[in-house]
Amino acid sequence: MFRDITTLLKDPIGLRTTIEEIVKHYHEIKIDKVAGIESRGFIIGAPVAYQLGVGFVPIRKQNKLPAKTIGRDYQLEYGKDRIEIHLDAIQPGDRVLLTDDLIATGGTAEAAVGLIQDMGGEVVACCFVIDLPDVGGHARLEKMGCKVFSLCEFEGD
Amino acid sequence: MFRDITTLLKDPIGLRTTIEEIVKHYHEIKIDKVAGIESRGFIIGAPVAYQLGVGFVPIRKQNKLPAKTIGRDYQLEYGKDRIEIHLDAIQPGDRVLLTDDLIATGGTAEAAVGLIQDMGGEVVACCFVIDLPDVGGHARLEKMGCKVFSLCEFEGD
Repeated sequence: MFRDITTLLKDPIGLRTTIEEIVKHYHEIKIDKVAGIESRGFIIGAPVAYQLGVGFVPIRKQNKLPAKTIGRDYQLEYGKDRIEIHLDAIQPGDRVLLTDDLIATGGTAEAAVGLIQDMGGEVVACCFVIDLPDVGGHARLEKMGCKVFSLCEFEGD
Repeated sequence: MFRDITTLLKDPIGLRTTIEEIVKHYHEIKIDKVAGIESRGFIIGAPVAYQLGVGFVPIRKQNKLPAKTIGRDYQLEYGKDRIEIHLDAIQPGDRVLLTDDLIATGGTAEAAVGLIQDMGGEVVACCFVIDLPDVGGHARLEKMGCKVFSLCEFEGD
């Protein structure tokens, strides 16, 4: 079953509430940058960055970013994939909020946290619209020292 | 030469000014939805939709959207590509603002405008961070009845 957020985001109140609930959660925490995972994470992360008054940095699939990058490979259920981030995206000491639409097994998010940590950034928290905690991603991110926040949870499927 | 907006968006003032300038331009025009073209158009379109108080709909490459879609093929310099939109994304009569990071030859944007018009939507305007008007995309969109707005222009390269 694929949990689809497009019906939420096309609704004016759905989009507004989604962003407001996330921003409210991080309003009193020092955040320097919001990072979003390609590409639904961009739809969540960019308005959150705007509302928090910080910059937005994209984390993308291999060979999609135009300047110099570092990358990390990660395992998929079948095969592997790679994500990359610009070398100038994160400064050492940056406090980063990582965003995506959904956390399931957490392979991509774990690689994204690793990339930010590789660059000397601190992933203050990872936030998602949907969490499927039974599938293990939530726990994987907490093991890496990240707080995990989501707007709703479903049983894994 | 690739015109890269990631250095603009990672800067808090850069991101804020980019979104504010676009929103200011459309504040007094009735807009029902903002559509963004995968995937840099999501980074621009989602905060603009949020600030205008309307919903956001993604236009994506082939087979990326989970529900029922309609699509359009378009020519690239070498070969062709296809974009798709969810069938429930646009209602007849919807006034749509289309967003992307950059308009060059305009093949993708033209296909996106066509898709929205196919569904009975009206593309009130197309907005971009960067316009390369010498390359022809700006003129192509105006021929389709769309106003084109950009924050800056460069000579085609």
